[in-house]
Amino acid sequence: MTAHTPIDWQFSERAQQLKSSAIREILKITQRPDIISFAGGLPSPATFPVEVINAAFDKVLAEQPKVALQYGPTDGYAPLREWLAHRLSSADAQIVPEQILMTSGSQQALDLLGKVLIDEGSKVLVETPSYLGALQAFSVYRPEFVSVATDDHGLVPESLPALASGARLLYALPNFQNPSGRSLSLERRQQLVETCARLQLPLLEDDPYGALSYTGRSMPRMLNMNPDGVIYMGSFSKILTPGIRLGYVVAPLALARKLEMAKQATDLHTAQLTQMMVYEVVKDGFLDQHIPTIRTLYGNQCQAMLDAMDEFFPKQASWTRPEGGMFIWVTLPKHINAMQLLDESVAAKVAFVPGGPFYANEPEHNTLRLSFVTVSPEKIRAGIKILGELIQSKL
Amino acid sequence: MTAHTPIDWQFSERAQQLKSSAIREILKITQRPDIISFAGGLPSPATFPVEVINAAFDKVLAEQPKVALQYGPTDGYAPLREWLAHRLSSADAQIVPEQILMTSGSQQALDLLGKVLIDEGSKVLVETPSYLGALQAFSVYRPEFVSVATDDHGLVPESLPALASGARLLYALPNFQNPSGRSLSLERRQQLVETCARLQLPLLEDDPYGALSYTGRSMPRMLNMNPDGVIYMGSFSKILTPGIRLGYVVAPLALARKLEMAKQATDLHTAQLTQMMVYEVVKDGFLDQHIPTIRTLYGNQCQAMLDAMDEFFPKQASWTRPEGGMFIWVTLPKHINAMQLLDESVAAKVAFVPGGPFYANEPEHNTLRLSFVTVSPEKIRAGIKILGELIQSKL
Repeated sequence: MTAHTPIDWQFSERAQQLKSSAIREILKITQRPDIISFAGGLPSPATFPVEVINAAFDKVLAEQPKVALQYGPTDGYAPLREWLAHRLSSADAQIVPEQILMTSGSQQALDLLGKVLIDEGSKVLVETPSYLGALQAFSVYRPEFVSVATDDHGLVPESLPALASGARLLYALPNFQNPSGRSLSLERRQQLVETCARLQLPLLEDDPYGALSYTGRSMPRMLNMNPDGVIYMGSFSKILTPGIRLGYVVAPLALARKLEMAKQATDLHTAQLTQMMVYEVVKDGFLDQHIPTIRTLYGNQCQAMLDAMDEFFPKQASWTRPEGGMFIWVTLPKHINAMQLLDESVAAKVAFVPGGPFYANEPEHNTLRLSFVTVSPEKIRAGIKILGELIQSKL
Repeated sequence: MTAHTPIDWQFSERAQQLKSSAIREILKITQRPDIISFAGGLPSPATFPVEVINAAFDKVLAEQPKVALQYGPTDGYAPLREWLAHRLSSADAQIVPEQILMTSGSQQALDLLGKVLIDEGSKVLVETPSYLGALQAFSVYRPEFVSVATDDHGLVPESLPALASGARLLYALPNFQNPSGRSLSLERRQQLVETCARLQLPLLEDDPYGALSYTGRSMPRMLNMNPDGVIYMGSFSKILTPGIRLGYVVAPLALARKLEMAKQATDLHTAQLTQMMVYEVVKDGFLDQHIPTIRTLYGNQCQAMLDAMDEFFPKQASWTRPEGGMFIWVTLPKHINAMQLLDESVAAKVAFVPGGPFYANEPEHNTLRLSFVTVSPEKIRAGIKILGELIQSKL
């Protein structure tokens, strides 16, 4: 065998701009055990119902091993899709299983939507700030991101008509948004659905955190306000476990069919065994007992963080007061760059995620995201004290 | 709420050409229990080691539930990647874990390779015929497929120099190819690797069936002949179970890093629990006992089909005599169209897959694919008799 010249790879144009998520790189650094990390976006492993999951695997493998371990249908395990369709239906809006495609986490739904809806240069409307994973998934297909104005009640519907012409979709995360923790008000939801329908603008409602309302009160899904114009994404990651990678997308039938074909070309189908296990777990109402325990845990830790912020953060900083979900969003005085702050903060053994990467355009560098779900109240207080003093020292 | 006009979806250009796999559509029809189906491409569920898999899940969930059920690294579960690197290394060629990306079935590796290597109009060289799932995965990225001449020993290396200029990759399935059942000879492998290296043409070696050699003898991987120029894909689907969706791709480091970033944007990572379960199953050598049982089963059923074909097929037909894998490829007299033959065959309660869809260009419609792995020897004989008589009636 002769020696070979290594290949000078010619990557696709879309691959040339691929970059690793800034957040995942930060997470690698901040996983040291001596660091109090508010940087994570992971659910608390204390909430994983290990025994219930194990029993469900045992049952599926005892009763239907040859179905569970064989190739399965691209659209997903039918009983689970039926269960979801029933759960998502309301008096006004019947959701049918044919609208539902099971995906490998809801991240995959973002990728598939990008694949079938976005051409190079297509306009995609996003919140300000927006979920980083969505920006990352869509950007592979090289859209033009258009940032839509957002206030304390979320997206501002009045700003849409001037931006919507030719846009392929509006991406919104209405409940306890990642990164801001904000929720869209009921009135805003109605206005948004009406405005999008009038503009023929597909509205993508990403809802990983909707169930995690600390009070247990929830807002209606935009999906149910107009199932012909809204695409809905859900996930089992925050209410059961993320490690199994199971999510789903609900779409009007013409789009659902395209997504199914794209999924077939992408990975044939999502693990049948996993879907059967989850169906076994959820079918008799387990989530109705389980989700309140997650709400209580996260609600208490959120309150601990808010209390500590009230005590230790300078009044020149402002922050959101989420009623659910996993994140608090902090706005610092303009002159403080959160990326630079992070270096000093990590030196003082506290980590967070700078806000800049969450903006599709014109990042606001004086923002940052804090997560409280995997940190004990004692450490939350200790970490917020350190961070508050550090911010104070910059004023 | 006012009534809304349904959206007139504007799909991406790539989505407009998405179509469902002809084979999966055929499979739906032929799953009726009264049909003897040689159309499947599914492994035999008799080979799934259900108890071993169940015990491994139990062990992982008992010992490391919080790791198994949490988000995991994009590149995959480190011990499994180390195990694979060790298994794939040879005296000449050391494979390192950093070259390996775990994927959701090897179908996903095809999609990720398309994503990072193929621009619209990029030349992609494929065998004649080629694996349909690869054509489907790549075609989303809109390449120009170039069919490379193939003879009874597989791809003809001499035909490459005239075709390779500007090509992004050559896709080859060297062991017991799907659909033809053919294998590349050792000499051809060496020529192919040398030729591709000289032409700076990335060579993609897809190897889902390599372990399924009926004799137990195996040919060296092209990966090990030139790890700097060969991309290798493997899968647990045919040696353990397909329903868990676990495969992997081995690539030179620069490409592996791009693939990892593309995977992160696509679905974050493949289920951690699944990877840990598989590692638990394989780490102490289980596959070395298990794979020979699959070889024996498939080898016997292949022989039963070949015997029946010798007895019942007219001498105007020719077919491959595979030494491993799951498929036999039949070439009929030119005037017989296998797609039309299928209608009559299904009416007579026997199904197969017409060969046309396996050609990237200029389909040979007088070809068809037979699978024997999920059919008993008695039914194989009965089905081949019916099919042979039907072909006879067309002469």
